[in-house]
Amino acid sequence: LSSKLPNLGTSIFTYMTGLANQYNAINLSQGFPEFDAPKLLKQGLAKYCDQGFNQYAPSSGLAPLQTQIASLIGRKYGIDVNPNDTVTVTSGATEALFVAIQAITHPGDEIIIFDPAYDSYKPAIELAGGRAVHITMQAPDYAINWQQVAAAITDKTRGIIINTPHNPSAKTLKQADFDKLKALVLKHDLLIISDEVYEHITFGNTPHISVLGDAELFSRAFVISSFGKTFHCTGWKMGYCVAPEVLTQEFRKIHQYVTFSSFTPAQLALTDMLAEEPEHITALAPFYQHKRDVLVNALQNSRFTILPSEGTYFLLLDYSEISELDDMSFCEYLVKEIGVAAIPLSVFYQTAPGDKVIRLCFAKEDKTLQQAAKKLSAL
Amino acid sequence: LSSKLPNLGTSIFTYMTGLANQYNAINLSQGFPEFDAPKLLKQGLAKYCDQGFNQYAPSSGLAPLQTQIASLIGRKYGIDVNPNDTVTVTSGATEALFVAIQAITHPGDEIIIFDPAYDSYKPAIELAGGRAVHITMQAPDYAINWQQVAAAITDKTRGIIINTPHNPSAKTLKQADFDKLKALVLKHDLLIISDEVYEHITFGNTPHISVLGDAELFSRAFVISSFGKTFHCTGWKMGYCVAPEVLTQEFRKIHQYVTFSSFTPAQLALTDMLAEEPEHITALAPFYQHKRDVLVNALQNSRFTILPSEGTYFLLLDYSEISELDDMSFCEYLVKEIGVAAIPLSVFYQTAPGDKVIRLCFAKEDKTLQQAAKKLSAL
Ligand SMILES: CSCCC(=O)C(=O)O
Ligand SMILES: CSCCC(=O)C(=O)O
Repeated sequence: LSSKLPNLGTSIFTYMTGLANQYNAINLSQGFPEFDAPKLLKQGLAKYCDQGFNQYAPSSGLAPLQTQIASLIGRKYGIDVNPNDTVTVTSGATEALFVAIQAITHPGDEIIIFDPAYDSYKPAIELAGGRAVHITMQAPDYAINWQQVAAAITDKTRGIIINTPHNPSAKTLKQADFDKLKALVLKHDLLIISDEVYEHITFGNTPHISVLGDAELFSRAFVISSFGKTFHCTGWKMGYCVAPEVLTQEFRKIHQYVTFSSFTPAQLALTDMLAEEPEHITALAPFYQHKRDVLVNALQNSRFTILPSEGTYFLLLDYSEISELDDMSFCEYLVKEIGVAAIPLSVFYQTAPGDKVIRLCFAKEDKTLQQAAKKLSAL
Repeated sequence: LSSKLPNLGTSIFTYMTGLANQYNAINLSQGFPEFDAPKLLKQGLAKYCDQGFNQYAPSSGLAPLQTQIASLIGRKYGIDVNPNDTVTVTSGATEALFVAIQAITHPGDEIIIFDPAYDSYKPAIELAGGRAVHITMQAPDYAINWQQVAAAITDKTRGIIINTPHNPSAKTLKQADFDKLKALVLKHDLLIISDEVYEHITFGNTPHISVLGDAELFSRAFVISSFGKTFHCTGWKMGYCVAPEVLTQEFRKIHQYVTFSSFTPAQLALTDMLAEEPEHITALAPFYQHKRDVLVNALQNSRFTILPSEGTYFLLLDYSEISELDDMSFCEYLVKEIGVAAIPLSVFYQTAPGDKVIRLCFAKEDKTLQQAAKKLSAL
């Protein structure tokens, strides 16, 4: 068998979580919460399963869940989307990203992605026969050089994948970025895949600017979100894609042959959660801002340089004052010798710029964050 | 956006289930059970969710579930597979089929499929840039003409997708089929994708012959099964793929970017179910054989010709004595005028042979089957 993805091994998340378990280290590598999903959500799962809602949901999702998603979008972004024609429930945001990428990428097409990039974008593009064109963003500010983006566009460019709030940099796109993005996509007739899985997690006065807030951008976009991030249930693998009807039709054609549909009792439980406890979502940003601050404060006397986190549940640390090691070696040293697992930034790059930066996940109990910070401060 | 799957609309299952609901017809179209999942399984889901097992499972599946799957395979097929290296848990058999097809199909490759074929094979092959080569099987016996298969093999042929027990024909592959399959795959160095989602549902003295029972065949095969079919929970979208280590590695590379992992509490609940109630699985064949017999008996005085069902939860009926309509029109007539939804066989063909045959699903309460049969017997 000749490999379809010859240069790929195990994902960094699988590797680092494995090492963390092996060395009994505090796992701040893979992004998942240490705390549990809300009670209402868990009770809903048990209830609907018990009541016998265990057969196929419609491929696009259960209508009441589609309706609740549309209503959340209406409240948050002031846009009226038709749930039936534009909202598709998926088996996690990863599936939604995969399907959207398959939907827009024909063999030979180029898709622009921004490094550091979530690890699934590039293999998904390559499986569709396309080519990922990498634009590099760098520490400490991870700003997008839009002139470089403009220069990278060719007549093969089909779309751009954006991600805000951004994993792993914890930065958000600003209105100025969206203005430049809009000029380019209109001029070159490009499609957008907008990975907004951390849409509800931004800090201080930083707003989350969504593609959903701009009708012209949304008219050519797939917007992807994740219930796992929003409701502390990454293991449920539930997410969704919102796109204009004509794009949704193409998305659904592929989705129906990738997973067909998603866990029925979970769809019903999520419907109730969205309808009955909308305050969970508005409380999410302050909840995580507190977590970020706990970690930042506990690292105040360390020799790491702390990069600003505007959103997501990630924090970047520059370790150039501490070690000469490359970031992968430094992370292996951290997990084995210091007892803290982190993610090296270089794995998110096609061509790593050599920044000495690692990523920590702060979706953990305060005590866990303090313990990890104490270990890291000893360096 | 130019379509990746230009000739495809909504799947027949979505369409027919929609019509059945609209016309308040008895839905024997889409294949899903009317009865519920076992109590232990449902309680397990509630328990593990409540206990807080709601974060990412490993991408390949939880180790205890992999172990239970390997042990089931050992008991049933007498083969010793290493759970860690060969078993991958997936978000339904549909995802497993999609991933296996992506793993073996390079652009330009040809994959042989047998029509009538499950509707996802061909689009999955085409999304990988491959071409489906169709071998036609026909009513009443749906036998494979292996000379025709041999003649269809070119230097671009990469693999063969087999499906036994077979949906929609309800036929099983015999040892003679496997002998011919083996000669061909060895001679031409082909890979096998074996869709065995109805592996536990065969009737009378019909054995289920699995690729897993033959070391030479298994050495080049992806074998796919479905918990939804086995445990009456199609809405859980849980399945798995078993393949030799080298094939599993390629499978997992793709799986990690398609869905990454599957519903964690369901994996734990399925682990207990397999460990604690193995008799559920051995009771499945007699359970469904009874259902089949209820339906067949209730149709005895109808004008349909009943084709033998050797496995699956489907039964084919030949309506040529009743109507001149093509099978799609006949099914639309049935659902609208008679109150029974069925699936026309022609939708499973690239080039339909014009057989006047429809498919009924008998995974229903006895009463439902009797009511449907009564309506159909009035024709
Ligand atoms: C699907 S595992 C990766 C989790 C995650 O989003 C991250 O750690 O960046
Ligand atoms: C995924 S919906 C199709 C269910 C099924 O396997 C069938 O009806 O053939």
